[in-house]
Amino acid sequence: MEADKIDGLPGQPAGVKFDQYAGYVTVDPGHGRALFYYFAEAPVEPSTKPLVLWLNGGPGCSSFGDGAMMELGPFRVRSDGKTLYQNPHAWNNVANIIFLESPAGVGFSYSNTTSDYNLSGDKRTAEDSYAFLINWLERFPQYKTRDFYITGESYAGHYVPQLAQKILQNNKITNQTVINLRGIAIGNAWIDDETGYKGLYDFLWTHALTSDEIHEGISLNCNFSSVTSLSEACISYLSQAIRSVGIIYIYNIYFPLCTTSSSPPTDGGFDPCSENYIYSYLNLPQVQKALHANVTGLPNPWDSCSVEINNIWKDSPTTILPVIQELMKSNISVWIFSGDVDGRVPVTSSRYSISTFNASVKTPWYPWYTQEEVGGYAVEYQGLAFVTVRDAGHFVPSYQPARALTLFSSFIKGKLPPRN
Amino acid sequence: MEADKIDGLPGQPAGVKFDQYAGYVTVDPGHGRALFYYFAEAPVEPSTKPLVLWLNGGPGCSSFGDGAMMELGPFRVRSDGKTLYQNPHAWNNVANIIFLESPAGVGFSYSNTTSDYNLSGDKRTAEDSYAFLINWLERFPQYKTRDFYITGESYAGHYVPQLAQKILQNNKITNQTVINLRGIAIGNAWIDDETGYKGLYDFLWTHALTSDEIHEGISLNCNFSSVTSLSEACISYLSQAIRSVGIIYIYNIYFPLCTTSSSPPTDGGFDPCSENYIYSYLNLPQVQKALHANVTGLPNPWDSCSVEINNIWKDSPTTILPVIQELMKSNISVWIFSGDVDGRVPVTSSRYSISTFNASVKTPWYPWYTQEEVGGYAVEYQGLAFVTVRDAGHFVPSYQPARALTLFSSFIKGKLPPRN
Repeated sequence: MEADKIDGLPGQPAGVKFDQYAGYVTVDPGHGRALFYYFAEAPVEPSTKPLVLWLNGGPGCSSFGDGAMMELGPFRVRSDGKTLYQNPHAWNNVANIIFLESPAGVGFSYSNTTSDYNLSGDKRTAEDSYAFLINWLERFPQYKTRDFYITGESYAGHYVPQLAQKILQNNKITNQTVINLRGIAIGNAWIDDETGYKGLYDFLWTHALTSDEIHEGISLNCNFSSVTSLSEACISYLSQAIRSVGIIYIYNIYFPLCTTSSSPPTDGGFDPCSENYIYSYLNLPQVQKALHANVTGLPNPWDSCSVEINNIWKDSPTTILPVIQELMKSNISVWIFSGDVDGRVPVTSSRYSISTFNASVKTPWYPWYTQEEVGGYAVEYQGLAFVTVRDAGHFVPSYQPARALTLFSSFIKGKLPPRN
Repeated sequence: MEADKIDGLPGQPAGVKFDQYAGYVTVDPGHGRALFYYFAEAPVEPSTKPLVLWLNGGPGCSSFGDGAMMELGPFRVRSDGKTLYQNPHAWNNVANIIFLESPAGVGFSYSNTTSDYNLSGDKRTAEDSYAFLINWLERFPQYKTRDFYITGESYAGHYVPQLAQKILQNNKITNQTVINLRGIAIGNAWIDDETGYKGLYDFLWTHALTSDEIHEGISLNCNFSSVTSLSEACISYLSQAIRSVGIIYIYNIYFPLCTTSSSPPTDGGFDPCSENYIYSYLNLPQVQKALHANVTGLPNPWDSCSVEINNIWKDSPTTILPVIQELMKSNISVWIFSGDVDGRVPVTSSRYSISTFNASVKTPWYPWYTQEEVGGYAVEYQGLAFVTVRDAGHFVPSYQPARALTLFSSFIKGKLPPRN
């Protein structure tokens, strides 16, 4: 534990009041496969606060670069690519958060056995993430009995339910650590191919990003129940739909692009060029040293997403709705949240997915509030809460940090977001 | 003409390079009914630029307070309510613009015969606006043969086509001024009750502002083809839908509210409290004097919208689609534009309305660009262009001034917005 403690991140602001840790946890000693994590404790009374794992998607994207540095972590990188400033709405204000770069081949995570990468997929990711957790808790034993939550977004709509399922299964049979899993929350999550694609193209149409004619062509020609055997006519309409949208930032359809003429926003809002600054920062040798990262001399620079891992992806079920349904019947809380202006995994997809459950409504749809504004909408079904975040894109905490923190705080309190 | 010239508006910035006029044009001498206008000429070569009339909707809202001072006019009011700053994307950069407060009872427009107000309605508005134009052109004879366009938004979706129809009709029979009408452009325009309401409630649902259950209730119970005889079940679901949305700024569903804790945006963007500053400014005696306004001692302060006129509204056809179809067959250009995040008269309503024409597509849907970003989308039908403005609410030029100016410039050039 103490070996992983970060003395201070290069360029971090003065007055950091929480402990940070980073390092590698070996998940396969024989192959030399190790996952990198960054852990930010809460500044106030961390011992009373839950433990939370955050996972980004892709597959192949970094929970540290995207999740911690761009979304919900304690720091953001300035446009100089060298210095940091505090994120006032960081989630570690209310919880102790582990950001795990998963699986091996993503970010700083690696394997010394190159052939391991060929096994990248949902199954391997769940196994390695579980092994990571068990080993990590040996290193941080004070967290062993702590309330534990798993959160994540996008393709982590696969990872998070699968890992939760594995934990609940292994808790029954393990002779080692029992993980005190209390809930999962997945945002703009890809959880089902059929409703996902239908929701995506409907979203493009209803948000006036594509034409009536193309939408009609998709409706008449596309059967998303088997996305691997779409008709030629369907595929033609789908590509027309994508072209008709033009060059926009699809992760937030109303947000500016990062262009050569972009300048950092003067109002303190999210900078569309953030990923560039993060790339620069995380490739600084002194930053990697402070993070105890890249100790084996990785062949490539750190990157936010690994195209190789994404391309090689081995197993990806067409739906994980059955896994979610299983979790809905367990005693953990299951939240699906969605930034409502994401064109990549839109709110429409999440709604279509959820509607397949035919779950009964426990708390009808209502607007929830934060900072005197509607933060979004919430509805509670039997076993599942669905919460939207108004004017948030794919990376919810990036665009709506205050709303996202209210959502997250409510989630770990086991309460729906506030009515006023 | 010279009597109407404005020496300078109180608190206006230095370096104003265009002529401004304001005053009253009597439309009924017997009753003493007079309409107030504000006219901003182009700063460069006004004699080569077209003449444009802008009309706001309501019914009962002020084209001067909303249109000129909040949307597309040369000035915006600062938060002090006393001083002005320039709007760099003012439409008078490319045209000479008349803002008409219409009908009598709206803004500074009035009648000395109070019973006139009881006749407020579409018919009276079109008649008076026509009379205004004929008389105004006598006062500004250099504009008599100029290319002329009518633009407006919201309920001006009624006014603009109706006035255009009257002009085309009267041009054939008049023994006085022939108005050289070249085109109309209406934005977020209420033009048809059936498609309008259907589009409105569909928009709320597809933008995740209301629930699946309520939307299903509306779909099953509401027949918007006769909005005056909706079923009780329908009306119940409609009110549930409105309640489910909560307190948001419905004219731009992602925009902040004007609250007591609002402060003017630091990035120069639109200020949600603008209407308050405008109210203060336009009720300053020195401002009214400079504008040649309120010369008869109006009983009430200037207001952006008249509730009385709105309540008294006499005639409002359930649809003006036939008028638009008539204009589509004439030789003027007809544009319908729409800010795509307006929840009051949403883009969905405009699309549903247009689809009833079954017009053939001349130029398929494409993204148009300005300032290196997608400004919106355009599609050209036989006789009609439909253009969206991305991330713009009901008051398009307020939220997206650069995109709106590109749209307007294209319109008066008779060209679709630029492809790159």
